[in-house]
Amino acid sequence: MLIIGICGASASGKSTLAKGIADMLGGRAQVISMDAYYKNHPELSMEQKRKLNYDVPEAFATDEFYNDILALRDGNPITTKGYDFTTHSRADRDTLIMPHDVLILEGIHVFADPRLLSMMDIKFYVDVDADTCLARRVERDIVYRKRDVKDVCRQYLATVKPSFDKIIHHYKEHCDVCVMGGGENTVAIRMAAAYIDVLLNK
Amino acid sequence: MLIIGICGASASGKSTLAKGIADMLGGRAQVISMDAYYKNHPELSMEQKRKLNYDVPEAFATDEFYNDILALRDGNPITTKGYDFTTHSRADRDTLIMPHDVLILEGIHVFADPRLLSMMDIKFYVDVDADTCLARRVERDIVYRKRDVKDVCRQYLATVKPSFDKIIHHYKEHCDVCVMGGGENTVAIRMAAAYIDVLLNK
Repeated sequence: MLIIGICGASASGKSTLAKGIADMLGGRAQVISMDAYYKNHPELSMEQKRKLNYDVPEAFATDEFYNDILALRDGNPITTKGYDFTTHSRADRDTLIMPHDVLILEGIHVFADPRLLSMMDIKFYVDVDADTCLARRVERDIVYRKRDVKDVCRQYLATVKPSFDKIIHHYKEHCDVCVMGGGENTVAIRMAAAYIDVLLNK
Repeated sequence: MLIIGICGASASGKSTLAKGIADMLGGRAQVISMDAYYKNHPELSMEQKRKLNYDVPEAFATDEFYNDILALRDGNPITTKGYDFTTHSRADRDTLIMPHDVLILEGIHVFADPRLLSMMDIKFYVDVDADTCLARRVERDIVYRKRDVKDVCRQYLATVKPSFDKIIHHYKEHCDVCVMGGGENTVAIRMAAAYIDVLLNK
């Protein structure tokens, strides 16, 4: 099994890139978003949840994510819950994920854990200007995740930007290649798929 | 014919990357360094030549370079002179270059001309810390190009660094993917070769 990592800023186009590569590989690839592994806090009120920092590595249940990847690599299916961004909690739906030839892991902190990093055969970092990401994020959060505009901007300045500047930005050093401009970079998608094809046919 | 462009700072590893990709493609690829197209100044003394700025696009005979690439693309052989960095002048040896399936063009200003840029099927930018490039450059210029250490450092501060900060750095925006760490990035080399293979077999 090949493991591909895709890291980058929030709203940089990681999941679009992951989907683009997976589509080129037909049914052989499975995308897993690390967002599905946000720590769940059923004990907190919505107001308390809103105040949590979702942009640091500690916001994720990384051991659970790692163990699920190990299980898939060992040929076992897993179930993920998904994540509901409107309620800041794990979604109440199970998704069964079967082992595939290729796992594409994407997330803002997918390069944070050295155990996961060392399992990755190819590491991409999606490189997009911070203001482009912000423009995409504002639209996504307000239109699709039904967030309040004040809340979106407050969160951006309070946690999204500091976390990018201090942590996520530096993950670039771990990548093999940087994908410029976002997830719709067709040259990068085709190049990745061609190489994965070569590795699968070895 | 496919045309691949490789840009990046001086001593970032462009020619190593070009050679790495070409080696993977067997005899189907030809590397052409834009260094062979430095403008020649036989009318100037060595002292005058030493004072020229070799780090701006105007230092290159870009039209000649462009016309040679056009000739190769049209199936005609060309001859290049090469460049002698110890005397700052064109080398007195002809190299016959035949058309190939793949031309790999590399140079600090290989993305400067829009005509060349629009001919490139894949564009790489080699991304390496400026101080790493400098350390490599100092060794190369003093040990292999027999330059004076004071001259190397003066040139770095006078033209190499300003040109990188003002011009070369921005070529990154034109690339499809950034190759991290330099020319010995095997994942990037294999990915490039795999994709070129796919394009050639179309």
